[in-house]
Amino acid sequence: MAKYTIGVDFGTLSGRALLVDVETGREVATAVLNYPHAVMDEALPSGRKLPPDWALQHPADYLEVLKTTVPSVLAQAGVSPADVIGISIDFTACTLLPILADGTPLCILPEYVDEPHAYVKLWKHHAAQGQADRINALAEKEDPERLARYGGKISSEWLFSKALQLLEETPEIYEKADKLIEAGDWIVMQLTGEEKRSACFAGYKAMWHKAEGYPSKDFLKKLHPRLENIVEEKLSPDIYGLGGKAGVLSQKGAALCGLMPGTAVGIPSIDAHVAVPAAGIVSSGRMLMIMGTSTCHMLLDTVEKVVPGTSGVVEDGIIGGFYGYEAGQACVGDHFDWFVKNCVPATYHEEADAKGISIHKLLREKVQEQEPGESGLLALDWWNGNRSVLVDADLSGLLIGMSLTTKPEEIYRALIEATAYGTRMIIETYEAYGIAINEIIAAGGIAEKDPMMMQIYADVTKREIRLAGSAQACALGSAMFAAVAAGSENGGYDTIAEAAKHMASVKDLVYKPNAAHAEKYDLLFEEYKILHDYFGRGENNVMKRLRKLRQK
Amino acid sequence: MAKYTIGVDFGTLSGRALLVDVETGREVATAVLNYPHAVMDEALPSGRKLPPDWALQHPADYLEVLKTTVPSVLAQAGVSPADVIGISIDFTACTLLPILADGTPLCILPEYVDEPHAYVKLWKHHAAQGQADRINALAEKEDPERLARYGGKISSEWLFSKALQLLEETPEIYEKADKLIEAGDWIVMQLTGEEKRSACFAGYKAMWHKAEGYPSKDFLKKLHPRLENIVEEKLSPDIYGLGGKAGVLSQKGAALCGLMPGTAVGIPSIDAHVAVPAAGIVSSGRMLMIMGTSTCHMLLDTVEKVVPGTSGVVEDGIIGGFYGYEAGQACVGDHFDWFVKNCVPATYHEEADAKGISIHKLLREKVQEQEPGESGLLALDWWNGNRSVLVDADLSGLLIGMSLTTKPEEIYRALIEATAYGTRMIIETYEAYGIAINEIIAAGGIAEKDPMMMQIYADVTKREIRLAGSAQACALGSAMFAAVAAGSENGGYDTIAEAAKHMASVKDLVYKPNAAHAEKYDLLFEEYKILHDYFGRGENNVMKRLRKLRQK
Repeated sequence: MAKYTIGVDFGTLSGRALLVDVETGREVATAVLNYPHAVMDEALPSGRKLPPDWALQHPADYLEVLKTTVPSVLAQAGVSPADVIGISIDFTACTLLPILADGTPLCILPEYVDEPHAYVKLWKHHAAQGQADRINALAEKEDPERLARYGGKISSEWLFSKALQLLEETPEIYEKADKLIEAGDWIVMQLTGEEKRSACFAGYKAMWHKAEGYPSKDFLKKLHPRLENIVEEKLSPDIYGLGGKAGVLSQKGAALCGLMPGTAVGIPSIDAHVAVPAAGIVSSGRMLMIMGTSTCHMLLDTVEKVVPGTSGVVEDGIIGGFYGYEAGQACVGDHFDWFVKNCVPATYHEEADAKGISIHKLLREKVQEQEPGESGLLALDWWNGNRSVLVDADLSGLLIGMSLTTKPEEIYRALIEATAYGTRMIIETYEAYGIAINEIIAAGGIAEKDPMMMQIYADVTKREIRLAGSAQACALGSAMFAAVAAGSENGGYDTIAEAAKHMASVKDLVYKPNAAHAEKYDLLFEEYKILHDYFGRGENNVMKRLRKLRQK
Repeated sequence: MAKYTIGVDFGTLSGRALLVDVETGREVATAVLNYPHAVMDEALPSGRKLPPDWALQHPADYLEVLKTTVPSVLAQAGVSPADVIGISIDFTACTLLPILADGTPLCILPEYVDEPHAYVKLWKHHAAQGQADRINALAEKEDPERLARYGGKISSEWLFSKALQLLEETPEIYEKADKLIEAGDWIVMQLTGEEKRSACFAGYKAMWHKAEGYPSKDFLKKLHPRLENIVEEKLSPDIYGLGGKAGVLSQKGAALCGLMPGTAVGIPSIDAHVAVPAAGIVSSGRMLMIMGTSTCHMLLDTVEKVVPGTSGVVEDGIIGGFYGYEAGQACVGDHFDWFVKNCVPATYHEEADAKGISIHKLLREKVQEQEPGESGLLALDWWNGNRSVLVDADLSGLLIGMSLTTKPEEIYRALIEATAYGTRMIIETYEAYGIAINEIIAAGGIAEKDPMMMQIYADVTKREIRLAGSAQACALGSAMFAAVAAGSENGGYDTIAEAAKHMASVKDLVYKPNAAHAEKYDLLFEEYKILHDYFGRGENNVMKRLRKLRQK
């Protein structure tokens, strides 16, 4: 009798359950629920307005996902709960909520329904920048080595920024909360009845380190006297690596999702990070690029290095037994969308309509036969700042080489090439610090839809690129961790590497570097690097000065 | 009884006669004839194909202009030829033709009608680049001071480039030609029966200098043995300054245009240069900007300085008694047209149509209330290379500061601002060499149509800007020189300054610098200068390297 696991992927706007055959990796059934409250960035359900930069969610929506999608995949597939040996989830992060000791979210208490700080702060809640700035300033002085593991800067999106904002703006909610918890950890607590926090959330979003733990009491106290004991009081010093078992479904948890009590539950992961094993990456040397509005680059290695400009390195943070490295480019799909919306003339849209193709495809068709360098254009891909390797949100875009014969499609291609140079810069930085990257696996919508771009990436990085096999890589990755949580004794696997052998896949298609193109791109990349360093490393801070002038 | 003069302006595609009241400057009547053969850049009238980069004209078209437009303005105004005291012309340059000693163009001889080199080479004939390169290489070694007066580089458009191409490609035509002559000088020869060559053509287009004359026989011989005596054989060592009298209408000349024999004829000018006195500029300190697809900057001074990056300095070349300076920006109106054609989305065109305004006006409306620096954008205006002050056609465009919220109208404004910075760079270069520019007069279509741009220029240059009074400034300037050729004894004037008092005008409108904006533009101009020098003066030759990569 076949055995199954379920992965549940909690994204920004919806949750998705995926039922997977453990032996074959076959994706048997899937179900999606859009969160009823979606993202609350203008007002609470009560109508109370939110300030700018806020982004909240309602935790009841997450439970609704479990209640509807898990039974749905069972019903669709005609699979009995008894044949489901494990469940695991992944979640956006840092997505943080205040709860009582028993797990009750503060926002469902009648006295707090009208209190913004009682709700879930979604990852893209950006109202804690002031707090992040102070954390960074203090860490530069007091804990520079820890900060260096995060590229020298932590984000307003991360846990301590959000916790400090909560404490400063509504101390009574801070006191009332028995715990501040990542939504992913909270969901697992709902399922198992136990709190077992994930190294992925703690490591990438809360400066936790396996050997050193969280920032020191002294550090936290200097940030705010009430934060001194936050780890013991509101978080937890006990952190569990990826690939571990969080527990089993409690009666209540089983009832919630329609599975059997006692079913294994995995340690949860961040949504992007769980795609790594789903793409078959369970050892060092291969990088996963998840390409969407932005690109996330992830890889594993057996050593811990502080590589400049990475977004984080966390032991056991992606899979157990490895250091998981994360880097990123802040502006990829967003870049091309900006261009198409703002810079493409009417005649092009008419031509695309007449051909019945998307404007992106039309632009590609016009320029895909060009040789590297043929347009004479070069861009710096910093329309949304630079995440890796410069970690500088105040940088901005640059385009050079225009003539009166420059065509829109040539600019479009130059923007694509610029993001490829940005990826090569990340790869070269890793390699300069002794971390090898021999091959690239790409996932995400752009990777699937844009063969020209993937070929350019192969030519620029001089590495073969394969595509992740699943279109639902996050949920699949969670289903794999569920199989590991179950273990071989229950029909699962003992390691994520074993699980990957059976359940992960990459497509047959390989983008191989074209040697002649790669040679030309080497020359163009040299030019990119000169401009990258000139504008990005302080030789000419014109981008920052222009940004300041905007604000006058 | 009122006295009149006629100015005839020979442009690229048409000739225009203007009848002007000498006492008041009133423009009484005008008539235009489009050249029947227009520009021949694909084939001769015989059907014979022309190579790339060729641009020819037919000299009979110019005579047709005289035959039709001069009688037309007289008839329109009911003015008797007896009341016309002078005629003068301006012409594009270098626009060169081979003729027999009696003035007969070789191209009308039956044996040469099918010979491209027998025709008029229009100013924008660009097929002599190889010859120009060799002239520049030789001049750098043998006559660097002369070359420096032309910004260190002479153009493929100029006389010696064209003459050398003619000699090398069809030596028999070169031998057959008794003269090689500027079309402007040729027309005057048709009118007066005498050859009297203008300092304007010789100085700006043939490296002639009032004290030093043409390049030496030794220099010319090294260029090509047959060129050694070109000045005596095919040109003329006798050169006449602007404001002088070329002669009077011969019987034949009078018959050609329907005026009285004996009517004074002025020394001809280049079309752009004659607009200087027409804008009332007859002394130092004021700069004329003629703004069209490109911008031409002209001014007068009493001293001769070699100012880096100017296109030429010629004694008596604009008006007698002054050194005339010319500089230029290669890409102004062309810049905005490129942008509108390639980079403006469909919704903007729909909005402009709905409002019944041009797309240029719509873009201005969206951005005219912005503060300097508000967009965060900065551009280098080198889409068509840089004429002044860098004299480098291999430079290209740059745009910096883009974010995901950057709007098309903000880029449009940044391009306008970039051309204003380019103008300020020209002004500052002049001033660094002791040539004062206190005020700017603007002429040309853009100056009339774009008040936002003129205000930006005033704010960026921190100088008042006025507009030239006449929409037919070239023809008016020629009519003024006609009045000087006639002299006060015939109802004209003895100097161009006197003529300007009565006949030239500027509009009442004054664009005054806004102090607050000028202060912000000072900061932005500092950034422009850093980028200008970094990319333009050899610190990072990426633009040239990108251009080379295009050609691989």
